[in-house]
Amino acid sequence: MSSKITDKTQAQSVIDNYEYFIFDCDGVIWLGDHLLPSVVETLNLLKEKKKKVIFVTNNSTKSRNDYLSKFKKLGINGIVKDEVFGSSYASAVYVDKILKLPKDKKVWVLGESGIEQELHELGYQTVGGSDPALVSEGNVFDPEHKMLNELDDSVGCVIAGLTMNINYLKLSVTMQYLLKDNKSIPFIATNIDSTFPSKGKFLIGAGSIIATVATASGREPDAICGKPNQSMMNTIKVDNPALAENPKKGLMIGDRLNTDMKFGRDGGLDTLLVLTGVETEDGVKQLSADEAPTYYADKLGDLFELTH
Amino acid sequence: MSSKITDKTQAQSVIDNYEYFIFDCDGVIWLGDHLLPSVVETLNLLKEKKKKVIFVTNNSTKSRNDYLSKFKKLGINGIVKDEVFGSSYASAVYVDKILKLPKDKKVWVLGESGIEQELHELGYQTVGGSDPALVSEGNVFDPEHKMLNELDDSVGCVIAGLTMNINYLKLSVTMQYLLKDNKSIPFIATNIDSTFPSKGKFLIGAGSIIATVATASGREPDAICGKPNQSMMNTIKVDNPALAENPKKGLMIGDRLNTDMKFGRDGGLDTLLVLTGVETEDGVKQLSADEAPTYYADKLGDLFELTH
Repeated sequence: MSSKITDKTQAQSVIDNYEYFIFDCDGVIWLGDHLLPSVVETLNLLKEKKKKVIFVTNNSTKSRNDYLSKFKKLGINGIVKDEVFGSSYASAVYVDKILKLPKDKKVWVLGESGIEQELHELGYQTVGGSDPALVSEGNVFDPEHKMLNELDDSVGCVIAGLTMNINYLKLSVTMQYLLKDNKSIPFIATNIDSTFPSKGKFLIGAGSIIATVATASGREPDAICGKPNQSMMNTIKVDNPALAENPKKGLMIGDRLNTDMKFGRDGGLDTLLVLTGVETEDGVKQLSADEAPTYYADKLGDLFELTH
Repeated sequence: MSSKITDKTQAQSVIDNYEYFIFDCDGVIWLGDHLLPSVVETLNLLKEKKKKVIFVTNNSTKSRNDYLSKFKKLGINGIVKDEVFGSSYASAVYVDKILKLPKDKKVWVLGESGIEQELHELGYQTVGGSDPALVSEGNVFDPEHKMLNELDDSVGCVIAGLTMNINYLKLSVTMQYLLKDNKSIPFIATNIDSTFPSKGKFLIGAGSIIATVATASGREPDAICGKPNQSMMNTIKVDNPALAENPKKGLMIGDRLNTDMKFGRDGGLDTLLVLTGVETEDGVKQLSADEAPTYYADKLGDLFELTH
């Protein structure tokens, strides 16, 4: 049974009990381009109390640098790059540290510039991705297109994630790389959220786009880097050894049970569900003990509002 | 154990034994835009012998009229509309005869003009599909696009099939209709071939595109109209009562085990696999008795060449 944070004592005790506060972004910090209430005040309060704040996001269209710009634009100051973990960064780290892909190999990207930027920072060359030729030439489909017929033999990995610039050429070239060399080129998914919440609607998510190339190639991704998979959590723990040693020093705050809450729970952290995103209070009340978050609250800003 | 047609006696006996010859098109009659050898001669021979020839295809991008033009262009003359059954036609018939959708309801189409033309012939209005606004406005994605926000309440069915003009707007609007009214609008797949063979390569097939909107909406299609599903076979049998009465008067000829051969077998017909498409002789030899076609041959044209 989750306890709802509704008064000063509860809010103060949550703040005091943890050293690491890990936040999902969309639905917790902001909704699209709108900052949620009392978020800046809550983050400032935690920073004053010397808490470590970390932001995690499954949206791979942006790089960590893009996220820093977004924080600044929304009036959240003082966030630094090593406080931000996106699925684009997690995927690039996976390619480098787990796959140990040689730096002379390239990565074919089905996705946007966030993935490319993170791979470039780690020293990899990318093909596909935001290449404008894939858009300008992809709108009128040509089965004899050069990219379908002249695959780059130096491609050693495929990363697939969310893209709003999807077209038949991009999907079909991605499929060729997934079939190439007897289906042996590693296939990495940034995340598998089936939907992408935007302006109060659910649109096509990364997992649904990945379903296309998975079905077409008869393959499932070899690794999934976003929440609730623990590869992003493991990267956070490597950077924060005290959290690795005692995960109960950490609180995972998110708006989704099946990604954020599972991500925190599987990492051994306590969890706080906020109701500013996709879940409802009625839904929380019906959860079994295994599934229930440690706490829930109407919004993240209540941590500030209830204590001031 | 399938018997291979390699001599005159065998070829003559296959021709004599059946009254109905049902052909898959791509990989049997043609490969893309190239007619396969001795196909015209074989079809003329069958027509001289008063056999009924029927063409079936899962490619929903074309209507029956489009196929008649293609036959003519490739030099195959004398084919008439009621000899052609495509998954676009089968889907339109399904909406009309099985769903019995009222004619004042519209159909949202994720697909190309073949589906639209067949629906229009049956008196339905369509939205989506080849509407140029979905392409010109779909290339720069706008989450506040009118089509995402102002769904047409007269839409009573969604048909999804192959399209080379896929984009994020089309997929996301399709998803909205699949979620609308508590997911109650019928969801029809023209066919679920995961790949689309083209110029010696496998590209993204209808089934892979449908996987996107199925994953995103958390729904599976309520009906699949193409091979190997029997709805197309049932439509053929309604038009040909003698075949319905004794399916063994019919021979299904195709290049794919999991669609064409299954389609024929499930319909009670004998089957002939040709090796001009995706299957190999080694593959055929390894099949169990349940899976093996009645006959196989290097190509359809052997029925003519071996008897002349």
